[in-house]
Amino acid sequence: MRNSVYMEELDSFTYREKISDGKAAVLVPVGSIEQHGPHMPLNVDVLLSRAMAGSVAEAVGGLVAAPITYGYKSQQRSGGGNHIPGTTSLDASTVISIARTLTLEFARHGVRKIAFINGHFENYQFLYEGVDLAVTELQRAGINDVKVMLLSYWDFVDEATIAELYPDGFTGWDLEHGGVLETSLMLHLYPEKVEMDKVEDLPPAVLPNYDVLPVRPELTPASGCLSSAAQATATKGEILLKRASVAMSAALDAEFQDVIDNDVEQK
Amino acid sequence: MRNSVYMEELDSFTYREKISDGKAAVLVPVGSIEQHGPHMPLNVDVLLSRAMAGSVAEAVGGLVAAPITYGYKSQQRSGGGNHIPGTTSLDASTVISIARTLTLEFARHGVRKIAFINGHFENYQFLYEGVDLAVTELQRAGINDVKVMLLSYWDFVDEATIAELYPDGFTGWDLEHGGVLETSLMLHLYPEKVEMDKVEDLPPAVLPNYDVLPVRPELTPASGCLSSAAQATATKGEILLKRASVAMSAALDAEFQDVIDNDVEQK
Amino acid sequence: MRNSVYMEELDSFTYREKISDGKAAVLVPVGSIEQHGPHMPLNVDVLLSRAMAGSVAEAVGGLVAAPITYGYKSQQRSGGGNHIPGTTSLDASTVISIARTLTLEFARHGVRKIAFINGHFENYQFLYEGVDLAVTELQRAGINDVKVMLLSYWDFVDEATIAELYPDGFTGWDLEHGGVLETSLMLHLYPEKVEMDKVEDLPPAVLPNYDVLPVRPELTPASGCLSSAAQATATKGEILLKRASVAMSAALDAEFQDVIDNDVEQK
Amino acid sequence: MRNSVYMEELDSFTYREKISDGKAAVLVPVGSIEQHGPHMPLNVDVLLSRAMAGSVAEAVGGLVAAPITYGYKSQQRSGGGNHIPGTTSLDASTVISIARTLTLEFARHGVRKIAFINGHFENYQFLYEGVDLAVTELQRAGINDVKVMLLSYWDFVDEATIAELYPDGFTGWDLEHGGVLETSLMLHLYPEKVEMDKVEDLPPAVLPNYDVLPVRPELTPASGCLSSAAQATATKGEILLKRASVAMSAALDAEFQDVIDNDVEQK
Amino acid sequence: MRNSVYMEELDSFTYREKISDGKAAVLVPVGSIEQHGPHMPLNVDVLLSRAMAGSVAEAVGGLVAAPITYGYKSQQRSGGGNHIPGTTSLDASTVISIARTLTLEFARHGVRKIAFINGHFENYQFLYEGVDLAVTELQRAGINDVKVMLLSYWDFVDEATIAELYPDGFTGWDLEHGGVLETSLMLHLYPEKVEMDKVEDLPPAVLPNYDVLPVRPELTPASGCLSSAAQATATKGEILLKRASVAMSAALDAEFQDVIDNDVEQK
Amino acid sequence: MRNSVYMEELDSFTYREKISDGKAAVLVPVGSIEQHGPHMPLNVDVLLSRAMAGSVAEAVGGLVAAPITYGYKSQQRSGGGNHIPGTTSLDASTVISIARTLTLEFARHGVRKIAFINGHFENYQFLYEGVDLAVTELQRAGINDVKVMLLSYWDFVDEATIAELYPDGFTGWDLEHGGVLETSLMLHLYPEKVEMDKVEDLPPAVLPNYDVLPVRPELTPASGCLSSAAQATATKGEILLKRASVAMSAALDAEFQDVIDNDVEQK
Repeated sequence: MRNSVYMEELDSFTYREKISDGKAAVLVPVGSIEQHGPHMPLNVDVLLSRAMAGSVAEAVGGLVAAPITYGYKSQQRSGGGNHIPGTTSLDASTVISIARTLTLEFARHGVRKIAFINGHFENYQFLYEGVDLAVTELQRAGINDVKVMLLSYWDFVDEATIAELYPDGFTGWDLEHGGVLETSLMLHLYPEKVEMDKVEDLPPAVLPNYDVLPVRPELTPASGCLSSAAQATATKGEILLKRASVAMSAALDAEFQDVIDNDVEQK
Repeated sequence: MRNSVYMEELDSFTYREKISDGKAAVLVPVGSIEQHGPHMPLNVDVLLSRAMAGSVAEAVGGLVAAPITYGYKSQQRSGGGNHIPGTTSLDASTVISIARTLTLEFARHGVRKIAFINGHFENYQFLYEGVDLAVTELQRAGINDVKVMLLSYWDFVDEATIAELYPDGFTGWDLEHGGVLETSLMLHLYPEKVEMDKVEDLPPAVLPNYDVLPVRPELTPASGCLSSAAQATATKGEILLKRASVAMSAALDAEFQDVIDNDVEQK
Repeated sequence: MRNSVYMEELDSFTYREKISDGKAAVLVPVGSIEQHGPHMPLNVDVLLSRAMAGSVAEAVGGLVAAPITYGYKSQQRSGGGNHIPGTTSLDASTVISIARTLTLEFARHGVRKIAFINGHFENYQFLYEGVDLAVTELQRAGINDVKVMLLSYWDFVDEATIAELYPDGFTGWDLEHGGVLETSLMLHLYPEKVEMDKVEDLPPAVLPNYDVLPVRPELTPASGCLSSAAQATATKGEILLKRASVAMSAALDAEFQDVIDNDVEQK
Repeated sequence: MRNSVYMEELDSFTYREKISDGKAAVLVPVGSIEQHGPHMPLNVDVLLSRAMAGSVAEAVGGLVAAPITYGYKSQQRSGGGNHIPGTTSLDASTVISIARTLTLEFARHGVRKIAFINGHFENYQFLYEGVDLAVTELQRAGINDVKVMLLSYWDFVDEATIAELYPDGFTGWDLEHGGVLETSLMLHLYPEKVEMDKVEDLPPAVLPNYDVLPVRPELTPASGCLSSAAQATATKGEILLKRASVAMSAALDAEFQDVIDNDVEQK
Repeated sequence: MRNSVYMEELDSFTYREKISDGKAAVLVPVGSIEQHGPHMPLNVDVLLSRAMAGSVAEAVGGLVAAPITYGYKSQQRSGGGNHIPGTTSLDASTVISIARTLTLEFARHGVRKIAFINGHFENYQFLYEGVDLAVTELQRAGINDVKVMLLSYWDFVDEATIAELYPDGFTGWDLEHGGVLETSLMLHLYPEKVEMDKVEDLPPAVLPNYDVLPVRPELTPASGCLSSAAQATATKGEILLKRASVAMSAALDAEFQDVIDNDVEQK
Repeated sequence: MRNSVYMEELDSFTYREKISDGKAAVLVPVGSIEQHGPHMPLNVDVLLSRAMAGSVAEAVGGLVAAPITYGYKSQQRSGGGNHIPGTTSLDASTVISIARTLTLEFARHGVRKIAFINGHFENYQFLYEGVDLAVTELQRAGINDVKVMLLSYWDFVDEATIAELYPDGFTGWDLEHGGVLETSLMLHLYPEKVEMDKVEDLPPAVLPNYDVLPVRPELTPASGCLSSAAQATATKGEILLKRASVAMSAALDAEFQDVIDNDVEQK
């Protein structure tokens, strides 16, 4: 039997065996194809959400689904804006449909614990809607035991870690696009994909507390990054991966324990 | 000629006159029908977004469109959850369609400055998508001079005001559902609609840093409020309304000034 | 406990108590933002459908939901046409979605008697479709006891009243846009919102027995009204409100009585 | 060259020649598959809208497109209701899409005069929306010379004819489902498809002035017809066909004359 | 009682009687309005799918539904391309909706055996999706005994017949657009609709093994046909009709036998 | 500057430089997550379409977009059927939306040559529709120089190669699911992902010449493969990759040469 936490690398017989007792959670990484400055490739959000999901899946005995590669449109206040060539995005209705359908598909397989592991800020609300629609449809069909979690991995970096890794102050996750968080994780996980010499050490972007459309391109720094990655290190990345994945794993264990308990009670 | 900043109270002849020189912005308040605890009515978000828009419209010489009354589903981490009877919500696709269509309709009228003034946390991303779709459609049809702003009014309460009004610490806008912000504004604007004796003075809700669906109802406090409104006062409401509307007005003036300048340049 | 037939003015605890025995019908007023001539504001259809619903709700012990404010596109033969600035409308798919979702939402609350009280001619078929889709979905999910009524309030003005109020002849409800019916009701209910001195006393519009798109604007009278409001009076409005609401109340009582009887039989 | 007013019977070369000078209107018959009592087949609305369109096309030098065979759901107050087996209908969104797409397709062919000839009461508003969406799309693409008419053929039966053919009084077109109008036309056009001995000579259906869903089947007469066809004759059908088609032809000529004039002016 | 295998020619009472024992299959012909060269009319696919369905229905004791007249866009490699005026097509979403809704409608009537008899190459995958959606919806509603077949009639012409009728070699069904298959069937069934003297006896079209959009019109032969119809004869048409309908009838009998057996077992 | 034909591995600055002269084609691989027997992983179609696209991109100087990972539902006659757990698929509307949006996004970047390289039989028609919708939208917006190719890579394996590699006869591409073609390519490209000892050497599946829904699972071989992979070898895979990619490259060069020529002519 093949062994991998990555579902797409398994043959279907092995996959079916792994989910057969109903206990394995399926984790769906959700990324984007989005500019991440001159020092990182377009698929950072795919790589990081997938690596985070892999680390969690190992800890909780789950599987990682093939990633949702293309995500919702980049917004200027969290990703620089969708007007930048290279950034390649889907409309809301498409992201919603993908999340809805994958939820229904895994439920059809017999999976009862599903988690979307988001790595692109802008995806969240649309994933939420897709999952909500799917769960409602399942309930109307009399299927009430499917439980779905949604999370963005950076929400599992605790205050202490932030204080430790951002000694000069933290400007918020929305401005972390192409900054210390993502770059450090990439340096730890895929150092060959980062060109630190290309980092532009600029002050954080100053963006308004509202959106305007069409976007005013001049508000996005020329680098496309909303904060500087100059302080990024592989060591910080290792810490971030570890702390976030431990916290996510604890959350999944706690939330999905409940699924098992319910099942036992029902029997 | 009738006089009101509220478009719906005008006859169409007066409305056309008011927008005829292309300078008047149209502000669209966006609310929800959502439980707001035992002490406030279901339409708090409609009332407050509309009042905020009215105050801004007076300052900038704009008009307030009829409100979008029903909004996106209440989420547990910002509104208690959509499972609570009384909360009455629309799907994402419907909210997106409404925002898209209203943008196109005002553009058809000749309006070139449009702002969505959001009063319900969960609406934001869906309004964004609707506006983005409309702006893209207009651009494909060769109409490039329509500019649309999107904002949530609480984002215009500055740090100093937060420190002043929340002397015991501030837990974040997402937990302000039914709390000091909304209740103070209601006490100032619609005191007859608030029953302060029904406020349940509980500690802030403790909610996970992820979502789970179906919702676990026990995570929402019995009051439906995510933080206590006990410290709310009409005076705080007056300050909040003033500071937020002044800041919003400045933002609109700054952003839409640009529209006028462009026009002048083009002539 | 707050007391109002208007659901949006209730807190959620009071709302839940009022619907708890399953007997209270929820009435949804459906309006539009549409030009109604120089003498009336853009929200006439919202105001009148809401007032009609309020009167009926009091008679049958029901509640009035927050209104559907924006409606389907104004058509030239019943509303002057959607090309007129000020008129601000939604596409069919959006109106259908709103009616579908609200039906599903009230059913989720436990309400079993729902009525859409239409005040804008053009909405009707789209409301019908939305309700039909919702009822089918509920039935597929095994929920068979939700009953939904759809009506336009002017259909409850009887022949005798028409003869009495239109002594010089009646040209049909479709031409009543901005005419005697709506203006009289406004004079009775909201006299401060009507400027009778602005009424243009023109003969009824002569419109073809077909539609043509794009609209030929010259077919709509300059006033935007399809018949003259010169004969409108508050007294006529009082009669219209009373007769229509009594007839609607009787219809709801008759139709929904059946729901209660069925329930009793099932127990 | 083949000769037929029915486009579907032409080869594409002949079709292209016939529309090549831009003057030929394309008429789209719109029917339904709907029960029409025990005495007539399910496709009455297809047959009659197609025959009406054929008669008009001959008069105005136009072509008849292949019919839209399936229509919107039968409603109880105009067609007996969609719950009756045999009646086979589409959702609103599908009817809208068909009307929208056919309008765009004929515009792509170069046709500038399009008319939808409706033969099923319930279709009208959905055809309207489809045409409205298409016309707006065309205008956004800079195509402003396409003109589309929508009509239901019975609206072209004048008062004098009604008085002549219904000497005992006329109960309205909505109750004519399966009654004198449709049966007379069928007797004139397709006598072999009518079984007059099966007509049930019942009084007109008494239906409420509102809709209720789910439908109460007992409100529809057992025959499925809303009024009696006993007084139908082929002679009446001949008169109805002649008068309605003459009136429709005049309307098309008048409305589409305008298209030609505009073109001439532009040259 | 009327007698016809064509459902649309029956009255609803007769239809209901014919499907009352649950054994009669309903066959839905699916065509298109598409250019078929200078020698045949635009509705060839409608006529042939309907005739095929009629022949099969007689053999298996089934009924033929009214045809789906308009189909999916003609593609250059199988129908010459949708850019050719005369060809009049629907988008994928509309074809999907029609197939989905008709499946649900016949299931509502009580029919448990449904077959789509396709006569236009390009329709197939969209019919499949519509049926798949409908079957899934039915299953979620607890209805598991509806069985739907999908087929294209030419797939039931066996190798021996091909060798017999195409002695000079067979170039594949996709190139048969307007060629020997369709023309022979038309000569047999509707000889008055074929003008053999207009056939252009050209070599088969040479089309690439990929698609390109926008279409390059020069790749389609001027005739619009992808292969020559010069060798078509009524005799070949008779053979094709007979062999294909016999094979289809056998397939339906075999597949739907199973439905009956299941029912018997359940009783 | 980074160097890779895989766009997702580039930073956005490098990507913009590579497409700046308008000559680089963007190739979009389209796969699926689908069972491919006991001997291959679920992502075979993603891996092979991506490798084929990479080989072609190198030859034509193009770029490979991030793959469309999830595809349309597996069908029994070409992929074993979507009922098999492990196979995880999207609805038609979602696949259509993805293809439409990516086409629009690359056009927004300034790319004028786009090719979808399909690796999953069932995707094709839905990709076609998505591209057709996008191209039409672009044309309506006045953008006429975007050219899009669609192909399935196996269509570029020529007859001679088939004869050479399938000496015992070839059963058609539809039955190649999990068979010699895909397994040989995997053995050549990703030998570590193939477990030849798990291949079940069964005769080709015998599937009817129609579809039936719900699927009859017993028609799919227990292996999930529609033909045996026993004769697969890495050498065959090398030949297949080389021949198909050479043929595809020639097609792209020929088709897109035209784009450049047009541009030159326009200048």
